Amino acid sequence: MNIAIVGASGAVGQEFLRILEQRDLPIDRLELFGSPRSAGTTCRFRGRDLTVRLLQHNDDFRGIDFALVSAGASTSREFAGTITRHGAVMIDNSSAFRMEEDVPLVVPEVNAADAKRAPRRIIANPNCTTIQMVVALAALERLSHIRRVHVSTYQSASGAGAAAMAELEQQHAALAAGGVPPVSKFAFQLAYNVIPHIDVFTDNDYTKEEMKMFNETRKIMHSDVRVSATCVRVPVMRAHSESIWVETERPISVEEARAAFAAAPGVVVMDEPAEKRYPMPLFLAGCDPVYVGRIRKDLACENGLAFWCVSDQIRKGAALNAVQILESLL
Amino acid sequence: MNIAIVGASGAVGQEFLRILEQRDLPIDRLELFGSPRSAGTTCRFRGRDLTVRLLQHNDDFRGIDFALVSAGASTSREFAGTITRHGAVMIDNSSAFRMEEDVPLVVPEVNAADAKRAPRRIIANPNCTTIQMVVALAALERLSHIRRVHVSTYQSASGAGAAAMAELEQQHAALAAGGVPPVSKFAFQLAYNVIPHIDVFTDNDYTKEEMKMFNETRKIMHSDVRVSATCVRVPVMRAHSESIWVETERPISVEEARAAFAAAPGVVVMDEPAEKRYPMPLFLAGCDPVYVGRIRKDLACENGLAFWCVSDQIRKGAALNAVQILESLL
Repeated sequence: MNIAIVGASGAVGQEFLRILEQRDLPIDRLELFGSPRSAGTTCRFRGRDLTVRLLQHNDDFRGIDFALVSAGASTSREFAGTITRHGAVMIDNSSAFRMEEDVPLVVPEVNAADAKRAPRRIIANPNCTTIQMVVALAALERLSHIRRVHVSTYQSASGAGAAAMAELEQQHAALAAGGVPPVSKFAFQLAYNVIPHIDVFTDNDYTKEEMKMFNETRKIMHSDVRVSATCVRVPVMRAHSESIWVETERPISVEEARAAFAAAPGVVVMDEPAEKRYPMPLFLAGCDPVYVGRIRKDLACENGLAFWCVSDQIRKGAALNAVQILESLL
Repeated sequence: MNIAIVGASGAVGQEFLRILEQRDLPIDRLELFGSPRSAGTTCRFRGRDLTVRLLQHNDDFRGIDFALVSAGASTSREFAGTITRHGAVMIDNSSAFRMEEDVPLVVPEVNAADAKRAPRRIIANPNCTTIQMVVALAALERLSHIRRVHVSTYQSASGAGAAAMAELEQQHAALAAGGVPPVSKFAFQLAYNVIPHIDVFTDNDYTKEEMKMFNETRKIMHSDVRVSATCVRVPVMRAHSESIWVETERPISVEEARAAFAAAPGVVVMDEPAEKRYPMPLFLAGCDPVYVGRIRKDLACENGLAFWCVSDQIRKGAALNAVQILESLL
């Protein structure tokens, strides 16, 4: 099997390399592609140095079976034809194709079968906030249909890329030294702050990030569920947290929900409040699962449940989910 | 008018002093009281040094008209008799008496009249998270009765006191220097983290902090509203943020809601997303109002609205609200 990584030098690209090293995939050839800035640099993989090649409109993808692409929506749009022309399946981390009808949007724990119908040989990886939420929601949907979701997010700097993570640390270093923090990767200083604005605003005064949680959740779950989200950046490095309420058709008890989460693929229940055991982003960076805790009844709704989930944004929220899509096709 | 401050050396006590200096109250005598640790220290007020006296069971409160008390629930319980015995009205910042039937729980913008019926001469100041939420909710309640509230909080270190604020800075300083961050004021490292646990857990797996938002909101608003809260500590210094959904009896348009917020006492609307104008805690420390933004329809509920509010926890969430209760009685 021949695999290409496009955007190999980015935070997600680097995570692709780590995951492919860790997992037991029969890889014959791994090709790395990047922008003019990263072309020519090398990345270590299974003891060898691989050189990042310049992404161009040529025949470089001939012989590639799967291309893991994380280089932004405009690059995905521009190069989708080049990447898939000779038969490669493009698993795309950007938002470019997610809502197109002939492009499946896949979280393997939820809708793996959808990946098998990809007429354009493009499969879209959902947005990070959606991925971790639907892995948890799918467990409850099996018990009773979910009608409504309210979700507030606590999103890490990693969602804005490696340079944004570095900037958050630089801000804290500058402040600790009595200096002026650099602000260029986020609209405002993120250190000691929270910013209720991720991606651009749409006509209904929700952000695109928030509307992704509405639209992508419906597509992945094949559901009419209505999701109202408030997406907030917090000064955390790698893992996203989500405070979620669901309303189901019939009431689900906390015990039923806990058992369903515990049995669900990709979910780890961490919910012993008396022992101070609940998911926190600082301690779950680098982990694969979606951690669920604070499971309890919704005090405002008879058929409602509240819970809290945390997952590494670069990992399950981006690179790992894409690799799992690839694995589901083997 | 003679005023006493109990707990004068704490974060809220110091804010009482600042607010009393700023506001035009006819104060004849100001007496400061504190624990054995702070007794004997001095605080500056209107150009003079006032000595903090030891809080004791004696007649020190004779002649005092109002005592602003912020020294924790057990001190409030132990000294309420001593403080009120000679006629002083105790405005108590702790949770000790909030839910007692013969103690009014007051946010002046919402239920100022309740403060006039205080048979035990004790008036309770609500919890910080409740205060800023009900100031905003009251604006909508005037349009249509609020049936349900879902709220996720983003709470600052200040709610855990001055030492906790210092610890958060020490954690960041230690991390920036490559060292080990001190952890004693919070259960876990707060720097680069969020902690979904404030106050202790109750039998229904909500925390006391979350149940305060349920119970106190109903008492203040004289309402059967049901509130489901998830309270989360974030690495921010002074201001709390809240992501809120309300369901009202009849649908309220975004325009109606915005006008109601703009006309509501204590509320400032900051809601021009295209201009990147929305409330953020870093920039609202030290401010008096409750700032409301991100006003939009609830995509999961026809009769629902979503919004975001931010307010300085030490200020409106604690000291200022207590002083406003006092002013409402003059």
